[in-house]
Amino acid sequence: MSWTLTPADLPDLARGAALLGTGGGGDPHIGRLMVEVAMREHGPVTVLDPDEVDDDAFVIPTAMMGAPTVMIEKIPRGDEAVMALRALEAHLDRDADATMPIECGGINSMIPLVVAARTGLPVIDADGMGRAFPELQMETFGVYGVSGSPMVVAGDHGETVLIDTGADNKRMEWLARGAAIRMGGAALIAEYAMSGADVKRTAVPRTLSLGLAIGRAVREAREQHRDPISALSEVLAPTLYAHLRVLFAGKVADVERRTVDGFTRGQARFTSFDGTSELRTRFQNENLVAEIDGVVTCIVPDLICVIEADSAEPITSETLRYGQRVVVVGISTPAIMRTPEALAVFGPSCFGLEEEFRPVERTVPVG
Amino acid sequence: MSWTLTPADLPDLARGAALLGTGGGGDPHIGRLMVEVAMREHGPVTVLDPDEVDDDAFVIPTAMMGAPTVMIEKIPRGDEAVMALRALEAHLDRDADATMPIECGGINSMIPLVVAARTGLPVIDADGMGRAFPELQMETFGVYGVSGSPMVVAGDHGETVLIDTGADNKRMEWLARGAAIRMGGAALIAEYAMSGADVKRTAVPRTLSLGLAIGRAVREAREQHRDPISALSEVLAPTLYAHLRVLFAGKVADVERRTVDGFTRGQARFTSFDGTSELRTRFQNENLVAEIDGVVTCIVPDLICVIEADSAEPITSETLRYGQRVVVVGISTPAIMRTPEALAVFGPSCFGLEEEFRPVERTVPVG
Repeated sequence: MSWTLTPADLPDLARGAALLGTGGGGDPHIGRLMVEVAMREHGPVTVLDPDEVDDDAFVIPTAMMGAPTVMIEKIPRGDEAVMALRALEAHLDRDADATMPIECGGINSMIPLVVAARTGLPVIDADGMGRAFPELQMETFGVYGVSGSPMVVAGDHGETVLIDTGADNKRMEWLARGAAIRMGGAALIAEYAMSGADVKRTAVPRTLSLGLAIGRAVREAREQHRDPISALSEVLAPTLYAHLRVLFAGKVADVERRTVDGFTRGQARFTSFDGTSELRTRFQNENLVAEIDGVVTCIVPDLICVIEADSAEPITSETLRYGQRVVVVGISTPAIMRTPEALAVFGPSCFGLEEEFRPVERTVPVG
Repeated sequence: MSWTLTPADLPDLARGAALLGTGGGGDPHIGRLMVEVAMREHGPVTVLDPDEVDDDAFVIPTAMMGAPTVMIEKIPRGDEAVMALRALEAHLDRDADATMPIECGGINSMIPLVVAARTGLPVIDADGMGRAFPELQMETFGVYGVSGSPMVVAGDHGETVLIDTGADNKRMEWLARGAAIRMGGAALIAEYAMSGADVKRTAVPRTLSLGLAIGRAVREAREQHRDPISALSEVLAPTLYAHLRVLFAGKVADVERRTVDGFTRGQARFTSFDGTSELRTRFQNENLVAEIDGVVTCIVPDLICVIEADSAEPITSETLRYGQRVVVVGISTPAIMRTPEALAVFGPSCFGLEEEFRPVERTVPVG
């Protein structure tokens, strides 16, 4: 069940991955261009289903980290993620058999494809967040026992920083974030080196192919003048992300956004077209919580996705702007991301939110 | 010419090293206590003259980095520097034959002794600054071609950060400082791994034994009721630090001190006992420049040392306080630190000072 990803797939994948990025995960346009360049030079990429990966295969996930507001201005040179991977291989004295995304997103679904194109390694159709999260300890990999470190942070001056915090993935994030800030606010990383058996046990499976399916469904709906949000709902229904709820339709009324501590933090306010209702979101790179008229309707780790009202094109936190006409949808996360262990690492309290997690399919009745 | 350093030597060494630390290099009391603990547990330390070191010996210098204002409150556990050394050995796949200080100072002349006591390695009687400087690229090692990285920064949670910036020692400093800040403002390091031949070619020789001689001379002068500053001058005269000049005598009138960007930065104002004259210093951990009534009289890399008027006990930047009665002396640095290559790395312009370097023995006539 391995398949080949070609440049023709990239616009759909970028769109779908950006939606799963839930406001973060990086700009889909930049991510797509990076893979296009790499594929033009090195050819297409082989994608492996997680079931196909040997239990004793050695897998090194790769990604970009930093504030999305920085990442849209500071485009990687292209070889930094390979450099990070190579440095981690050298440190662990073992060559990787495959790379893998750590999260879904416009850039972070793409970086492993750049690495795969440049190295000839296959990329595994899975990731460690099943969406995007702002911090490196927020991985299902870590929730289920894979150590994030040793990890490597690589910058565009050819420098590498290898961080080893033992089993403490939160401290790893703290030190890696510091390195990324000093590298200009964004950097490329290789982390959570693991076995194929670990992938099967800890990763959220088939999120690359899901991103591709989402992007394709939205595009085809547009081409056929069908409602892209219904198409989105249909493509998700048979997957681990079974429930899509339309939370709100309206206009962006207000965006407050700061680049602080290496993150894009802020909040946005949306008003309904008739002006009678209001939705507020808070984000740390990714959307964390959505409140309608003061009532929480969707909260991490469920996905809160802001999309253009007409086209269902995802809008990331750093490109939100006054007057955009949007629909905000909530999507249920896979069960592996809703266990008590998982909520202890990326549930609401991990972001300083006081509200309990409540599954979006229970908060919002079917529309 | 190897010799053994015992706990009885430590008070003298701490005093002399703190004087050479020229305001920085860490608190001598804390440094002394750390070595005493290590020696009590592991025995005395063998000190090697640089001439005795085999050309192909493998030397890894060790030190503490951070703001002295932090270091007096955040005492190392004791094994972090060994951890940094071991991590660098593992990365370079070679065991160290010796350690060495990177600078003179109350703490940083002592850390390699802690490492030596705990590991059984000898420590080389030399260092890379011939005094203390605030930044890691400011080493004669680097001036004369030794690469600072790969280096390791170790924190008190057992974490290590391995930084590789190729030949760019300034970028290494930038990333290491970031790591030290995230580790709480101070951390232990191993860097500038080099051969014995490199030590002979690039290090400032015999600064540990000089520190010991300075501390001893000051103590004996006190015991014999002689002028300790004359004793200091006499002990320096036959060394590479030939010229001591008394710049000023008076009281501390004002200290402005901030812990910023991982450094202790600030300035101090001193007034003469008769109130007719004023000396101002600026410091970044270490004293950088001394101006008397608006005229520069001593400037980096020459040493500006603030000492207690009666006892000649050195006063570090973080312990300067209003009302202290002090003498400020300037001491000429060794020739290896005054070359154009050296001044390009730690001369006045490297600290944002507009004044040119002028040797203190020419600025201030013999008193």
